[in-house]
Amino acid sequence: MRIAISDIRTCLETILKRSNISTSDARIIADEYLEGELQGKTSHGLMAFPSLIDKLQSRKKPFVPSVIRQTQSMVFLDADGFMGSVVGRKAARMAIGMAKKQGIGAGFITNMTTWLRPGTIARYIAEQDCIGIVFNNGGSAMVAAPDGIDPVIGTNPIGIGIPTTREPIVADMATSVRAWGEVRKALQSGKPLPMGAFIDAIGQSTTDAAKADAAESMGGYKGFAIGLLIEILTGSLLVRPMGKAANGTEEYRTATRGGCILVIDPAAVGGNKAFNSANSALLRSIKASKKRSGRSGIRIPGEEAQLTRASSLKK
Amino acid sequence: MRIAISDIRTCLETILKRSNISTSDARIIADEYLEGELQGKTSHGLMAFPSLIDKLQSRKKPFVPSVIRQTQSMVFLDADGFMGSVVGRKAARMAIGMAKKQGIGAGFITNMTTWLRPGTIARYIAEQDCIGIVFNNGGSAMVAAPDGIDPVIGTNPIGIGIPTTREPIVADMATSVRAWGEVRKALQSGKPLPMGAFIDAIGQSTTDAAKADAAESMGGYKGFAIGLLIEILTGSLLVRPMGKAANGTEEYRTATRGGCILVIDPAAVGGNKAFNSANSALLRSIKASKKRSGRSGIRIPGEEAQLTRASSLKK
Repeated sequence: MRIAISDIRTCLETILKRSNISTSDARIIADEYLEGELQGKTSHGLMAFPSLIDKLQSRKKPFVPSVIRQTQSMVFLDADGFMGSVVGRKAARMAIGMAKKQGIGAGFITNMTTWLRPGTIARYIAEQDCIGIVFNNGGSAMVAAPDGIDPVIGTNPIGIGIPTTREPIVADMATSVRAWGEVRKALQSGKPLPMGAFIDAIGQSTTDAAKADAAESMGGYKGFAIGLLIEILTGSLLVRPMGKAANGTEEYRTATRGGCILVIDPAAVGGNKAFNSANSALLRSIKASKKRSGRSGIRIPGEEAQLTRASSLKK
Repeated sequence: MRIAISDIRTCLETILKRSNISTSDARIIADEYLEGELQGKTSHGLMAFPSLIDKLQSRKKPFVPSVIRQTQSMVFLDADGFMGSVVGRKAARMAIGMAKKQGIGAGFITNMTTWLRPGTIARYIAEQDCIGIVFNNGGSAMVAAPDGIDPVIGTNPIGIGIPTTREPIVADMATSVRAWGEVRKALQSGKPLPMGAFIDAIGQSTTDAAKADAAESMGGYKGFAIGLLIEILTGSLLVRPMGKAANGTEEYRTATRGGCILVIDPAAVGGNKAFNSANSALLRSIKASKKRSGRSGIRIPGEEAQLTRASSLKK
């Protein structure tokens, strides 16, 4: 079955507007879900849309995000349970404005519904010629320590956005080997999980989604240290529960998260007019590397998602 | 052979002072080299000291670090070729002061000699009750892309410092599987390299230090994306060469690096009085996890270095 992308977008926007979302906000949200699908990150695409609508429709009063604290280089927002995709865009805009003056700007958000993929915010920042580093907590504790069995921290993803002379460098990745969405996807499809990404309740590696009890951190203790940092940047820093304490109530698990957006403006720090072209030159030198035996080419972070997007658009 | 630690420290300080380093700076530098040794990171300990002294003694004029640019939340310093350990301490102090007012502060440094381990700066920041995230470029290009053979970016280490109610959480790690110092160490000792950390000139995994041509990034493309971000934060952002271009001259390779210090003050962002104790509670819940079969315990980032330090001190 083939459906035009514009029809899917219109359909998503219509459903969002019926759930009391404004026209401009509905466009941002619909784009994020559609982009996940187009980039082949289907666990963070249309599959995730129905649960968002459930959350929005169960809400009885309007969303009123507010500023908790603001300085010349930092804003801390309470999303009032609203979508991180929308409040995150607002926080990023404010952080970019501060970075243009101060060199660095930060947006912190508490009490938001997921922004789905931090890479979306990071890309937006890179499109304004700034470096974006974006974190959020992955929800409840799902990642085990490399020597442990119990899930103790979230999958805590990172989004990175860096301007070049062409498409920005965009990375969007969980600090676990794989995102927890892989388990949901495998449960639906019946396919096995990727190897080495999940463990069962007795701490043994498993590819059976029904037995997956915790995710492995990427790169062992190194990735775990970065995941722990993000747990804190989007947890205790924002006066939020962390680790297993964040699993306390169904309300918390499904309703709200913390987010952290860091923006650096190269023009205001080093004043480097050749910043974008220096980054492009670095990418070219990476792409020009000799390939290992049996590999088809050297990838740049975010490139695969871009290629999948282009091929999805053709279909 | 046993030598008292105080004697080693006095000896290091004496050599540094003969190389035109002030008494207070000599103490900071001696401590950093001694700490590396005590924490068992011997490739970043006393073994690295002679090459520092060579660099210092080949210098004909005094070091005069200067401020290139400063805003209310950012300072950009030119180290004039001086030690990152000392200039980094100064930049961290300035960034902490800015973070206390603005919530976030940043210190960028160009033209510095290595600060050896970014964790030393990160620990210093955590001891002032702030979160420290510290990067530097690892020198010349030494890490290959996961599908490539050529070394294209540095080993680009991260230091993380987070306050708790007791010892801070301190991570200090290359974004490669192992630091390049492991190769130097193996060349001296004749022992094999750890498995899966280095490749030879045709892209095959090797444990032979004489054949090691590039390091693997930690966690595959995820770690490579973080290493690439650091290459840019300590490269083009600070108007410095990156990747292979940074290998251009022996002078560059041995003399100067770029550094990036980010400081967040929890009191000024979320105003969380329970920040330190919430972090300690998270650590306790991680330590309380069931252990995997055959593992002796759950480690917290930085804990192993602390344990090695305590045991080295006893000896």
